[in-house]
Amino acid sequence: MTQTQETEYQAVSPSDFFYRNREIAGFSNPSRAIYVGVREILENSLDACESAQIPPEIYVRITELSSSGGENGTAVYLLRIQDNGTGVPAEEIPACFAQVFYGSKYTLKQNRGTFGMGGKMTILYGQITTHKPVIVTSSTGDEIHEYEMMMDIQKNQPQVLRHTTLANEKGWCGTIVELQIEGDYPRIMSRMIEYIRQTAMVNPYADITFIDPKNRLYRFERGTTQMPPVPLRVKPHPHGIDVETLRRMLLITKSRDMKNFMMDQFQGVGPKTAEKFLAFAEIKRETKPPNLSSDEIVKLVRAAKDFQEFYRPDPSCLSPIGPDLLETGIRKELGLTEDDFIKTVQRPPATYSGYPFIVEAAVVAGPTVRKIGQGITLYRFANRIPLLFDESSCVTYKVISKDINWRTYNVQQETPLVVAIHLCSTKIPYKSVGKEFLADQVEVEKEITNAIREAARDLRIFISRSVKMEKQKHRLNIFSKYLPVIAEFAMRLGEKTDMPNIKKLLNEILVVNLQEEEEENGNGEENGNRVLPPPEEETPEVELEEEKIDGKEDK
Amino acid sequence: MTQTQETEYQAVSPSDFFYRNREIAGFSNPSRAIYVGVREILENSLDACESAQIPPEIYVRITELSSSGGENGTAVYLLRIQDNGTGVPAEEIPACFAQVFYGSKYTLKQNRGTFGMGGKMTILYGQITTHKPVIVTSSTGDEIHEYEMMMDIQKNQPQVLRHTTLANEKGWCGTIVELQIEGDYPRIMSRMIEYIRQTAMVNPYADITFIDPKNRLYRFERGTTQMPPVPLRVKPHPHGIDVETLRRMLLITKSRDMKNFMMDQFQGVGPKTAEKFLAFAEIKRETKPPNLSSDEIVKLVRAAKDFQEFYRPDPSCLSPIGPDLLETGIRKELGLTEDDFIKTVQRPPATYSGYPFIVEAAVVAGPTVRKIGQGITLYRFANRIPLLFDESSCVTYKVISKDINWRTYNVQQETPLVVAIHLCSTKIPYKSVGKEFLADQVEVEKEITNAIREAARDLRIFISRSVKMEKQKHRLNIFSKYLPVIAEFAMRLGEKTDMPNIKKLLNEILVVNLQEEEEENGNGEENGNRVLPPPEEETPEVELEEEKIDGKEDK
Repeated sequence: MTQTQETEYQAVSPSDFFYRNREIAGFSNPSRAIYVGVREILENSLDACESAQIPPEIYVRITELSSSGGENGTAVYLLRIQDNGTGVPAEEIPACFAQVFYGSKYTLKQNRGTFGMGGKMTILYGQITTHKPVIVTSSTGDEIHEYEMMMDIQKNQPQVLRHTTLANEKGWCGTIVELQIEGDYPRIMSRMIEYIRQTAMVNPYADITFIDPKNRLYRFERGTTQMPPVPLRVKPHPHGIDVETLRRMLLITKSRDMKNFMMDQFQGVGPKTAEKFLAFAEIKRETKPPNLSSDEIVKLVRAAKDFQEFYRPDPSCLSPIGPDLLETGIRKELGLTEDDFIKTVQRPPATYSGYPFIVEAAVVAGPTVRKIGQGITLYRFANRIPLLFDESSCVTYKVISKDINWRTYNVQQETPLVVAIHLCSTKIPYKSVGKEFLADQVEVEKEITNAIREAARDLRIFISRSVKMEKQKHRLNIFSKYLPVIAEFAMRLGEKTDMPNIKKLLNEILVVNLQEEEEENGNGEENGNRVLPPPEEETPEVELEEEKIDGKEDK
Repeated sequence: MTQTQETEYQAVSPSDFFYRNREIAGFSNPSRAIYVGVREILENSLDACESAQIPPEIYVRITELSSSGGENGTAVYLLRIQDNGTGVPAEEIPACFAQVFYGSKYTLKQNRGTFGMGGKMTILYGQITTHKPVIVTSSTGDEIHEYEMMMDIQKNQPQVLRHTTLANEKGWCGTIVELQIEGDYPRIMSRMIEYIRQTAMVNPYADITFIDPKNRLYRFERGTTQMPPVPLRVKPHPHGIDVETLRRMLLITKSRDMKNFMMDQFQGVGPKTAEKFLAFAEIKRETKPPNLSSDEIVKLVRAAKDFQEFYRPDPSCLSPIGPDLLETGIRKELGLTEDDFIKTVQRPPATYSGYPFIVEAAVVAGPTVRKIGQGITLYRFANRIPLLFDESSCVTYKVISKDINWRTYNVQQETPLVVAIHLCSTKIPYKSVGKEFLADQVEVEKEITNAIREAARDLRIFISRSVKMEKQKHRLNIFSKYLPVIAEFAMRLGEKTDMPNIKKLLNEILVVNLQEEEEENGNGEENGNRVLPPPEEETPEVELEEEKIDGKEDK
């Protein structure tokens, strides 16, 4: 039994755990590390601005301090990220930035931040690669507080090395994070810029300045100051409740009986619904919440999943981009022209296990897209975050490659196409802490599929139209090439001296062609801004089975 | 600034964090939940047996207790998993099973368990879906201890409801875990059985009995009692060290100076290497470890990454399956025959960021494989765990679909082929806590590619050989069809009465054909058990760039 003695049992702190397994938070190598680092802090900055309806002004600077030399070609960089957001209350700063599992993201609310991990992991990674402290400067409007800190990883505690309080005459509000990190910027450069570009695409009200290690300045100016509504915190929806959450709520609630408990603590439950539901769940409405037995708790949770008469989860807490802003953003960043096809749609709110979500989609085609390349280019966004890595494991990829039958839309394998998806929700179903791809929740997959179908509906017309136009051009070229010759020949033959007017003739041909087309396509002119009822072959909607979903990848 | 007030800061416990984000541990839906649950506990059982060199006898039973009814079609199941491993010391049981971030997996050692999370997450998920306690019965050889426990998720503490000590006349050693969990077994059934089948494939010394909810018994008997060597804990390799680890080691070491510190605390460092290295790192060998300045710490870590004269990381701590056992397992589970091609290879130990690893691969082709289906079927194993989900995000998938040029081996798109990969390491580069796919560490990707190339080397001969055989069969059929007719005709013509001996003729044809072939293929007879030096076109080996790796998935 010597082996048993050998076995060594120990507890590790949360930061220690993520320190040992940093790759699961996205820090899998030096180039990913600096990418994720910038990304996480930038996203916190955007959250901090939006929560106060302040049009974000973000300043990101990466400075190379020293090449670590050596074969692995990494270097030490100084990251500086500044925002004009709400700022963090002085007393919260140390824990917020240097204690894993502490923060403001643990609420039911649309946030870019989901795990409340990114900022800390960046600081942690910076510390374990450079052993330098992080400097956080922040103000909520009163004095400016500057903290110099290290993390005690084993204890998961902030170590404050210096705390300075500065006067704040100008009433500055915001946060500045400065840290050193070892990374490999050259390898990730193109992705980093693409990431910021796409961020600008879906945050058109944000001003973003980026200065890279070669001192190149990238400026992304806001296209509008119109802000999306502040995402609100919401009560949970009964459909998504689990035993643990319910147990906790029952212990702290002030509601005097179960009927009031259901009404006070959940969204979408009025007095009638409360009574109906409790009857359905076979629980006395007079029961005092703390007196619910564990069997009753389980019964209630089960019933809540099956009861069909709750209102849908409240989408008021969501802030989608909106079809117009999405179109603006895409037109701006892709530089679309009149000749391009773009259709943006927003689906009605839906829900998966009690979390409300909205899917928005855009489909773009035409000459400009042709320049981007053949086949489908996919842009993925979740709560306004661009997702750039692990595309093939993302449910959106599955939808465009497997669920959608592109032939329906005259789209061939090589047809150049841009598809953009934005999912917003109080809980994005990320498959990993790295926040790069979405798990295939059945309801989400369904909505994404339908969004693309809706956006692609008029694509068929546009494509056949442009194909026809190509043909016509070709035909016209031939005419305009030979008509003059024929005309001249005819002129000589008839011993005339004045050429017949060919232009007129050519124009007539053009007109005729276009008319033909109109008759075929009906008012195809509107170029895809109508909403038609779905064609027959599309409904019934995608039915998706778990097994199939899991099964997909393997042979 | 109302928003600032609104912002709510709070700390959550580790279990609370994973409770809120259970999908990142693989518990993304009811069918995945029961799959992951069984898997995690089964893997802990296998670890517990191997660490004591006990041929595992594992008993898994899933009993349906009650259908929760309702539309979502889930049910409550009782999981019971029993092993004959080392058992867990009584005093460790509560924390080991009901406290996140506590356990025996936090050491540098080849383990199936990596994060020390799976068991707890299963118990946690069971609790939040059924609110029932877990029952753990275990003995290290003395008394048998039975614990009935719940998790206090908010405090991340075990709550012991009952602790009974029983006599242990038979000196039983092992662990039994019993818990209730809500899940959807029917949807995951095929995967569950496939998982256990593949587990048997790479653990041929294990006896596994599985009884499913329909009371069907699946028996996987061991093919051998020969056990792999016990994986040992090892000292870290300097190449993989980071500032934090080094700092911790410097604080607790008893070594009197840096030279001894390097020799005592790291593997692969003798007195000469220690001196050479410290000179290279510009650190005085007499310096007392605790007196190293943080700049020196950083300098030492950088130097350790670049210094080329350390011994390779020590692979003695790894326990690969071995080409023969791997072949046995695959032959057994796929039911291969004489006519099939199988080649298994084991690569020499390699290392990524200081962790030793070994890649083993098998390539299988032939009639039996044809039954499995067209194209490549990929089996993925990591430290003897079969990986069944998210194949397309796994580096192994990337290798077979992008890095290997199959034409080199006469393999066409539709050629039926089985490729099996086993990676064993003290640290498997999992991309998520769900342990389903491997991150693309450059060195690992390189080794996998070379392993497959080595295994596939004689495939070309086998395939062209079988293609030719097909042709020959066809030719022979024609001969044997017409020769008799011709013979009889000739007989009549010559007014003879005795038929010429056609068999002889046919055999001759056959012989000739085979000879032809020999001449072309050299001693192709050996049917793929030789090791040739790599053909020219294969070396230089795959060069892989970070950008390319990340870039792969997206357009």
